[in-house]
Amino acid sequence: MKIARPITALIESFSKLPGIGPKSAQRLTYYLLHVPQIQLDEFADSVMNLKKNTKLCSICKNISEDDPCPICTDPMRDKSLVMVVEQPLDILAFERTHFKGVYHVLHGAINPLENIGPDELYIDDLLKRVKEQESGRVSKAWPDKALVEEIIIATNPTMEGNATAMYLDKKVKIQNAKVKISRLGMGIPTGADLEYADETTLTQALEGRREL
Amino acid sequence: MKIARPITALIESFSKLPGIGPKSAQRLTYYLLHVPQIQLDEFADSVMNLKKNTKLCSICKNISEDDPCPICTDPMRDKSLVMVVEQPLDILAFERTHFKGVYHVLHGAINPLENIGPDELYIDDLLKRVKEQESGRVSKAWPDKALVEEIIIATNPTMEGNATAMYLDKKVKIQNAKVKISRLGMGIPTGADLEYADETTLTQALEGRREL
Repeated sequence: MKIARPITALIESFSKLPGIGPKSAQRLTYYLLHVPQIQLDEFADSVMNLKKNTKLCSICKNISEDDPCPICTDPMRDKSLVMVVEQPLDILAFERTHFKGVYHVLHGAINPLENIGPDELYIDDLLKRVKEQESGRVSKAWPDKALVEEIIIATNPTMEGNATAMYLDKKVKIQNAKVKISRLGMGIPTGADLEYADETTLTQALEGRREL
Repeated sequence: MKIARPITALIESFSKLPGIGPKSAQRLTYYLLHVPQIQLDEFADSVMNLKKNTKLCSICKNISEDDPCPICTDPMRDKSLVMVVEQPLDILAFERTHFKGVYHVLHGAINPLENIGPDELYIDDLLKRVKEQESGRVSKAWPDKALVEEIIIATNPTMEGNATAMYLDKKVKIQNAKVKISRLGMGIPTGADLEYADETTLTQALEGRREL
């Protein structure tokens, strides 16, 4: 049977999204057939304007409506503490904690299998942030820009994320030996069941144990 | 932290889709930030044109580019055998089998809790299909339209689907006592594990047993 082209077109578009298989794509498409046209137009507008109306913050490379982004311009944020993350989405997660420093988004992790090396990521920009301030050249545009004192590397605990963390550690220390570099603590997540924890996680939880 | 409005707008649109929670909506949105604008435009176009470029087939109420739809106009399909389904999506599933009859889409099932009664569904249109042909008024436009001889009710095996099947059975029989009405066979699905089958399914499998 020949399915109507407008339907197959949308099924195809949905199938390209991560985590949406052909069955889910069908289900979503047929669901949208019952939705008022105005809601479809709203949806289409959001998709079309997603990238048109956003830009990269020139300081931290987060995605934002303004450049620099609201976090980099917030006078209440501690500019001496920089958290390095892989993706802008990771910032959302940390913003739900009490973290009061600023961010640097790499937009990926070093992954030789997918041809993503340090040059494909915003690593140079991070080193420049450290160096600029090391040399005392505090930008006139951002007079409140403090020296970077600590970098927290919050890449994912995957092979790629760990490789990126090690690479950054080496590079930043060459640039500026005084910067303190840390990595997120590893161990058991809150609410987890010890019974199901894998041995790597348990080993890291043991190594990272803290006195009460 | 204030997230850029174009981002929150798309997250909101995705969250309205069935089976997509706030976390998945975030993930999909941030994924699309890495996608070329041309692919976003294609996606937006498919959403916008989904309903604009499709219509309901006036015979079977399936969604199609043409009216009547390709199935209703196909001379190879057996017009005397009508399969009644709840949704257009169900047709896709049956088209993967060797079913060679035609369809009738109800666009839902009777559900008093959600205020969906027989009048909200395309039930009258089904009865008209049966009646029109019973009275011998075979449409000139579709001379190959045979008398409806059998109706297979393929609503879902849920409370609503079963209620709809019983309602249809009664109504069709009042209209035309000669039409054969059947319901899809119930039992164990292929590949299932008997150990995990629920008792209703097992009871129905026993009732529906066939000689070898």
